[in-house]
Amino acid sequence: MQSKAPFAIAEYESRLAKTRTAMAKAGLDAIFVTDPSNQAWLTGYDGWSFYVHQGVIVTAEGPPIWWGRHMDMLGGRRTCWMDHAQIIGYGDHFVQSTEIHPMQHLAERLKEQGLERARIGVEMENYYYSAKAHAVLTTELPNATLVDATALVNWQRLVKSDAEIGFIRKAALISEKVIQTAIERAAPGVRKNDLVADIMHVGITGVDEDWGDYPAILPLTPSGLDATAAHLTWDGAPMKTGEATFFELSGCYRRYHAPLCRTVYLGTPPDDMRRVEEAQMEGIEAGLNAARVGNRTCDIANAFMDVMGKHGIERAGRMGYAIGLSYPPDWGERTASIRSEDQTVLQAGMTFHFMPALWMDTWGLETTETILIREEGAAETLCDIERKLFVKD
Amino acid sequence: MQSKAPFAIAEYESRLAKTRTAMAKAGLDAIFVTDPSNQAWLTGYDGWSFYVHQGVIVTAEGPPIWWGRHMDMLGGRRTCWMDHAQIIGYGDHFVQSTEIHPMQHLAERLKEQGLERARIGVEMENYYYSAKAHAVLTTELPNATLVDATALVNWQRLVKSDAEIGFIRKAALISEKVIQTAIERAAPGVRKNDLVADIMHVGITGVDEDWGDYPAILPLTPSGLDATAAHLTWDGAPMKTGEATFFELSGCYRRYHAPLCRTVYLGTPPDDMRRVEEAQMEGIEAGLNAARVGNRTCDIANAFMDVMGKHGIERAGRMGYAIGLSYPPDWGERTASIRSEDQTVLQAGMTFHFMPALWMDTWGLETTETILIREEGAAETLCDIERKLFVKD
Repeated sequence: MQSKAPFAIAEYESRLAKTRTAMAKAGLDAIFVTDPSNQAWLTGYDGWSFYVHQGVIVTAEGPPIWWGRHMDMLGGRRTCWMDHAQIIGYGDHFVQSTEIHPMQHLAERLKEQGLERARIGVEMENYYYSAKAHAVLTTELPNATLVDATALVNWQRLVKSDAEIGFIRKAALISEKVIQTAIERAAPGVRKNDLVADIMHVGITGVDEDWGDYPAILPLTPSGLDATAAHLTWDGAPMKTGEATFFELSGCYRRYHAPLCRTVYLGTPPDDMRRVEEAQMEGIEAGLNAARVGNRTCDIANAFMDVMGKHGIERAGRMGYAIGLSYPPDWGERTASIRSEDQTVLQAGMTFHFMPALWMDTWGLETTETILIREEGAAETLCDIERKLFVKD
Repeated sequence: MQSKAPFAIAEYESRLAKTRTAMAKAGLDAIFVTDPSNQAWLTGYDGWSFYVHQGVIVTAEGPPIWWGRHMDMLGGRRTCWMDHAQIIGYGDHFVQSTEIHPMQHLAERLKEQGLERARIGVEMENYYYSAKAHAVLTTELPNATLVDATALVNWQRLVKSDAEIGFIRKAALISEKVIQTAIERAAPGVRKNDLVADIMHVGITGVDEDWGDYPAILPLTPSGLDATAAHLTWDGAPMKTGEATFFELSGCYRRYHAPLCRTVYLGTPPDDMRRVEEAQMEGIEAGLNAARVGNRTCDIANAFMDVMGKHGIERAGRMGYAIGLSYPPDWGERTASIRSEDQTVLQAGMTFHFMPALWMDTWGLETTETILIREEGAAETLCDIERKLFVKD
C-alpha cells in the first residue's frame, strides 16, 4: 500500500540527515520527538491523536520509528513513509491510566534499541511532553541520560525546501480567499459566528484541487474592546458600526500555513486609528525592506520600531515568528522570533509571519504578512491582499 | 465593565468550594492549574492563548488568580468573573525565550502569596504543563513542595450543574445538525474536504440564537481503509461507492461538547458489516441500560462487551469517557473512562461520550451517544439521531 506522506522519500531522508548532524553536534545518541509538527516533518505522520502520548525515535542510523497508541498504528501505516515495521504501539490500558504510564512502554522499546545507557534528547518544552512523562521516563531509564533537546528539530525546519515553499504558497492562496471572505462579509448586524462559519467554509474548501486543511489556530476575530485582547475567538454578538474587528486567520495546505491578518472598521474610523494605520503601513514597508539575506531577525523588528518611534507610538515585544508546518495549539515554529533580542541571520527560504500588530487602549490594529526571505532583495509577501485598514461605511 | 463569564458568580463559588475540599483532602495549600478547561471552569477565562504558559492559582481563601502573558491579561479581564486585580501577567520577553522562563515569574508571584514553603499541587500530566515548566518551578521554589495534582480539578467537574447540563443540551442540538449534514451530504464523488467545510459551517452557525463554538477535536471523517485508523481528519479525495465513512463530530456551545458519531455506507454494505451493526446496536442498548445511578462505569463497558462476546466480536479497550467543558486537543475530561478497569460509581448529572466504536481489519463502524446519567432509569441520550448504519445507495 502506498503511503500518503506528502513529500518524496528523498526529502524525508534529507531532513533526517540534517537532524542527525544537529544530534551529533549536541552529542546525542538518539532523540525522542513529541512535537507533532516535528513528527510529521520527519515521518509524514498525520492524525488528530496528539492528545495521547506518541513520538518519533531517531537514532544514528536507519529510518525513524513512530511510536504511539496501538489504535493509531493504523494511522501511522496510512501516513508515514517508513515500512510498517517502523510503526510501533502501546495498548489501550496505558491510556489515561493512573497506574501505568505509556512512557514505561517507551522505555522498554528504547532499551530494545540498545539505548539503555544512551544520551537521549527529549523536548522538555513541548505541549505533548508532560512533566509526568519526563518523570516516568527518567525513572525507567536510570542508566540513560535524558538531555533537553527542545527545538533541535524545529531549528532544522527553519529554511524551507522548494517543495515546502510550494505548499506554503498554496496555503497563501487559501489565506487570500479566507481574508477576502472576512472583509466582504463584515457588516453591521452580522453575527460574528456566522462570519466565522463562512471563513472556515472557504478555508476548508481550499482553492481548486488544493483542498484546505484545518489551521493550527482557529479564527481570532475580536471586535471593539475585545480587540484590545490578542487571543479571543468569537461569539454570537452582531458586528457594530463604530468598531474595528481584526481577523487573524490562516489558510492551511497539508499542515502548512500562511497566516494573514487584516482589520476592518465599520463606519468612519477615528483620527487616531488613521494615524496609527499610516505609521503601521510605513513600518511594515521598512520591516520588509530589512528582511533580506544576511540581516538578522532583530533588524526587521528594529526597522519597524524605528518608524513607530518617529510617530510616537510605543511598541515592544515580539512582532513575528517562523512559520510552516504546524499542529494545534500554535502555528509558529517556536524558533526564531522577530524581536530586538533575536539575532537569527536571515537565509533564503526562511518563512515568517511578520506580525507587527498594535493593540491600543480601546482598539487593536492587526495588519500582517507571511514573508519569504529571497536570495536577493527585500522579502516577498506571499499573500496578495491590499495592505491597509479596510473601512466599510 | 461586565464580565462575559458564562455562569453566575455563585456557580463559580460553588466550584471553588468543591475544589478546596479536594485540596484539603490532598493536604494542599494551593494549586496551580494549567489545563485550559480547568481554568475556564474556575474563572471563565476563554481565549486561544493556551499555547503560552498560563494558569490559575487557587489558595485556601479568596477568589482565584488568573496568571498569563501580559497581552492576555486583557482577555482575562474580558472573560473572567473576578476583579481585575486577580488577573496578572508576565512580559513578552519571557515568551519562548531560551534564557528566561515564565515559571520564574510565576514563582515570584507564588512567593508573594505566601506560598514559598507551601505544598502546591501542579498538573504533572497535562498538555500545558511542560517538563521544562516543572523543572524551572521546582528550582525556583526550593522550599516549597510540588505535589502531583493531575485531574484534581477535573474530578470536581464530573457531576454537572443544571446550568452546565443546559449548555450540553444546546451543544447536543448543534451536534444533531452537524451529523445530519454529514449524512445528507455524503455521496459518491463528494470531496471529503467539501463535506467537512459544510459540517464546520453548520456547527459554528449553531441553532437559532445558540451560536456554535469550535469543537476541541476537529472533524474525524475517514473512509474505507482510512476508517480502520481512529484519528485521521480529512483530505480532498472524493467519496466512493463501496466504502464506509465514519463521522466523529461534536457541536460545541460555549466550550461544552456533546460528541456524536455515525457511519455512512455508500452502496450496499457487506454482510459482515451488517452483522456487526446489529451486534453494535444491541450492545449500545445494553450499555445504556447499565448506565444508571449506583452502577459503575465498568458495568457499561461490560454490558456492551457481553453482547459482543455473544456475537463473537472481539473488543477491548476504552469505550467512552466523561465529557463537558473542553479545549483542544481533547474533548474528554480525562477522569472516568468507560472500560472494565474503571470503578467510578455513576451519579445523576454525569455526562459521558459512550463510544463503543468497532474498528475491524478493513473498515470501521462508529455509532456513539452522549449520555446523561439520570436520577432514575437508564441513561438519557442527549442527541436524537437514529441509531444505525446509514446506507446510501
